[in-house]
Amino acid sequence: MNYLRNAWTQAAWANEIQPGQLLARTLLDEPLVLFRDAQGRPQALHDRCPHRFAPLSMGRLCDAGAAVQCPYHGLRFDGSGACVHNPHGDGRIPAAAKVRSHPLVERHGALWIWMGDAALADPALIPDFGFNDPEHWAVGTGTMVVDAPYELEIDNILDLSHIEFMHPLFASEAVRRAEVRCEHEGDTVWCKRFMADDREVPDFLRQAFQVPEGAIDRWLHVRWQAPAVMALWAGGVAHGRPPEQGIVSQQAHCFTPVSASQTLYFYSISFPKLMGPLAQALADESVQALRAPFEHEDKPIVEAVGRRMAGASLFELKPVLLAGDAAAVRARRLLQAAIDKEHA
Amino acid sequence: MNYLRNAWTQAAWANEIQPGQLLARTLLDEPLVLFRDAQGRPQALHDRCPHRFAPLSMGRLCDAGAAVQCPYHGLRFDGSGACVHNPHGDGRIPAAAKVRSHPLVERHGALWIWMGDAALADPALIPDFGFNDPEHWAVGTGTMVVDAPYELEIDNILDLSHIEFMHPLFASEAVRRAEVRCEHEGDTVWCKRFMADDREVPDFLRQAFQVPEGAIDRWLHVRWQAPAVMALWAGGVAHGRPPEQGIVSQQAHCFTPVSASQTLYFYSISFPKLMGPLAQALADESVQALRAPFEHEDKPIVEAVGRRMAGASLFELKPVLLAGDAAAVRARRLLQAAIDKEHA
Amino acid sequence: MNYLRNAWTQAAWANEIQPGQLLARTLLDEPLVLFRDAQGRPQALHDRCPHRFAPLSMGRLCDAGAAVQCPYHGLRFDGSGACVHNPHGDGRIPAAAKVRSHPLVERHGALWIWMGDAALADPALIPDFGFNDPEHWAVGTGTMVVDAPYELEIDNILDLSHIEFMHPLFASEAVRRAEVRCEHEGDTVWCKRFMADDREVPDFLRQAFQVPEGAIDRWLHVRWQAPAVMALWAGGVAHGRPPEQGIVSQQAHCFTPVSASQTLYFYSISFPKLMGPLAQALADESVQALRAPFEHEDKPIVEAVGRRMAGASLFELKPVLLAGDAAAVRARRLLQAAIDKEHA
Repeated sequence: MNYLRNAWTQAAWANEIQPGQLLARTLLDEPLVLFRDAQGRPQALHDRCPHRFAPLSMGRLCDAGAAVQCPYHGLRFDGSGACVHNPHGDGRIPAAAKVRSHPLVERHGALWIWMGDAALADPALIPDFGFNDPEHWAVGTGTMVVDAPYELEIDNILDLSHIEFMHPLFASEAVRRAEVRCEHEGDTVWCKRFMADDREVPDFLRQAFQVPEGAIDRWLHVRWQAPAVMALWAGGVAHGRPPEQGIVSQQAHCFTPVSASQTLYFYSISFPKLMGPLAQALADESVQALRAPFEHEDKPIVEAVGRRMAGASLFELKPVLLAGDAAAVRARRLLQAAIDKEHA
Repeated sequence: MNYLRNAWTQAAWANEIQPGQLLARTLLDEPLVLFRDAQGRPQALHDRCPHRFAPLSMGRLCDAGAAVQCPYHGLRFDGSGACVHNPHGDGRIPAAAKVRSHPLVERHGALWIWMGDAALADPALIPDFGFNDPEHWAVGTGTMVVDAPYELEIDNILDLSHIEFMHPLFASEAVRRAEVRCEHEGDTVWCKRFMADDREVPDFLRQAFQVPEGAIDRWLHVRWQAPAVMALWAGGVAHGRPPEQGIVSQQAHCFTPVSASQTLYFYSISFPKLMGPLAQALADESVQALRAPFEHEDKPIVEAVGRRMAGASLFELKPVLLAGDAAAVRARRLLQAAIDKEHA
Repeated sequence: MNYLRNAWTQAAWANEIQPGQLLARTLLDEPLVLFRDAQGRPQALHDRCPHRFAPLSMGRLCDAGAAVQCPYHGLRFDGSGACVHNPHGDGRIPAAAKVRSHPLVERHGALWIWMGDAALADPALIPDFGFNDPEHWAVGTGTMVVDAPYELEIDNILDLSHIEFMHPLFASEAVRRAEVRCEHEGDTVWCKRFMADDREVPDFLRQAFQVPEGAIDRWLHVRWQAPAVMALWAGGVAHGRPPEQGIVSQQAHCFTPVSASQTLYFYSISFPKLMGPLAQALADESVQALRAPFEHEDKPIVEAVGRRMAGASLFELKPVLLAGDAAAVRARRLLQAAIDKEHA
């Protein structure tokens, strides 16, 4: 399968690898072992010893992270993938004894990996999730495995009109009837959904927006970047007041393909630390509240869609396209163009 | 895989779809959703929304069955497969927004589907299972999934000489040594097995035939119609009396392919309602008694045969044919000829 | 997949088939049924009736082992694979009614099978496991299914330097630093590992070698024969004494492919019956002690190696070879040459 390789994509949440631990994770069909080196820097190696092909992730970290030791015959590799110790024979290290490494950068509480040409891996290109920066924000995070192609998750997040049908608890005709603007800035696609003068707002949203009664002006803005890195701002304010006075929930919805038919879903919601100790409790509670619909409503339907598509691509199946599909179609075309360019 | 499509085959028992319910079922490799419309008529649609390919069976019935609503973005389809509601944008219904439907007819307590050219679907061609008509008969029914090609079930039911070896409880040398006649009327194959003057009848059969002692004249007649629709009459009478005075158990053994390697087995046994309230109890008890050998004796061996054949066709493997194979070989040749004709 | 067929390989331990029992076992992708005939001789038949392809192993032994009866329609076959009874029609036995049989010989407590040209099956070629002969030896045996190609087990046993890294309980730098000699006699490969003057011997080994204190001279000698039939002698004696005075543990490590990706692992350890009743208890206890590392240490890593190799051959993947690989590489080349010769 052709993936977009020269792009940053999320490999893990930063707290998924603690010092001294090895994390095995397959991304873009490649088995990886993630760990922190002696300096605490995250490292990503191809998870296969070049000697007898055992997974390094079944071995152990040595010297406070300076090297990973193969579980089978004890070769050791550092974070660059160089073999630094051969316990056999005369101890000479064969020239071919190295494993591939990938740039892995910790940013805003997440680990971003670049699985293409390392020379092109500019950290300045990492998508901006400043609202997940642990310095200023209390963040609740979750990770979910979805047995479906990652492209289906682009479609899901960029067309939130599904909320009314798929998520009874959040259902609101207003979301479907919203004024929708699809914008395109360089390689970024925005889907902006405005629901002015909404009078049928579920109670929990009234509470979130702190507008106990009367009409609310609401919005749902989604930002997409390749391959499937999305941010969502869900805001609301008393009808007629300027949006700047509203309350905004900030979420990450980042998807990384494990394989052509499996996806890792990294999601988060964050609240400003200015709120005090309440912020983290709110983040934790909110991310738990998101987990239920993600696991029990989105996941089963997205996976069923994947089974029904049976490996065919979306356009090959000639979908009937509706008003809500504009943003996802635009994002998919940008993504395909970028992939085609890489493989040209 | 090439299936016979221009033929009626059983999709379900009629009581498997209750008003208001959606039943997901894959037949001939095609996922279907079955339901009853507002008039109570059974309907069968391709179980995939043409918009984003979600299974309609994960949605819900609207307007007392008038339409199925897609679980993802809420398009609605009626029993003919036409889209009758688009909740998005200006609500216009795109011309391509329709799903395939298949003729589905309720007859004699079963739902019969025609998965070929709908223009050829003449209900007069539905195989006659009058003995399952709920007006006059108390019927016990069962459904079983068998992980084997459906053709192996034709072989199994058309050669009942296996009873002696596979079903210890029913074992009787008489069945194997029976006088067997294989008859062929148009597209129907009969295998008629006569066991005259049988003196070693198991007690439960004596009871069933109400001949507590002395020799019994027994028979087992199987009728096959394409693709794998079979009826079985198992009769017995005191030796020398006319068969018309005997007692006959009437069974359906209908098989529909789910895929090349999986089969749905619909079976039944019926008793005349003239018997009074006892009839239904007897039907329920009898079908339960059949379930055990079907599940624990036929199913494991038929599935093991399927594994041993590993996807090859019967004749390709050059089977050693014995006396008992005549009817099944004839039925298989008729079936193959009908399939070949469809694909010519 | 190309297997070496004209060679003896272990099919089972002798006590796995008791009189009256049928044992189903797939070897080299071929389903087999093993049993003892009326004379107690082990027999191996292709496990598929030539009539309707039911597994004979689901049937039963008749006439004290003289024949296997098919579970479906009752054909019977003797140990040569000839049909000896047809219960249908006139009872004539069709000429084609036979199943393939393979030479199967009981030797030293094991059953050895020859799955190639039966005319070449000379029992004199059966590898010598005299130390498993039940007349003189108390033997503890085990069988394990490994989901990995059998060739990986050749590599595992012929390079015991892995002990230090994979088996913490047995870990000893001495094994890795041992003087290693790789010898080659005809079609047999030896890997001999000498650890002289070892002073850091784990307690349980001291006990086994009956050298409670002081340095020990130890050795580990592995003998390989095609396809993956290995014997291991693990010996020790007080430093400076002649090896003949030492105590030697004798183990079999025999591997037979089930398929390209699954292997049966037959292992044993034996003690001389001269030791008295203690010998069998010691054998049973020792084989239990081996089971834990085999199942929880070797098996997971060897299986993970198989997954990482994903069906590619070792040399195709250009492994980095180390000092310890000499014997395994030699054995694999001999094996490949023998397979190539068979298929030339």
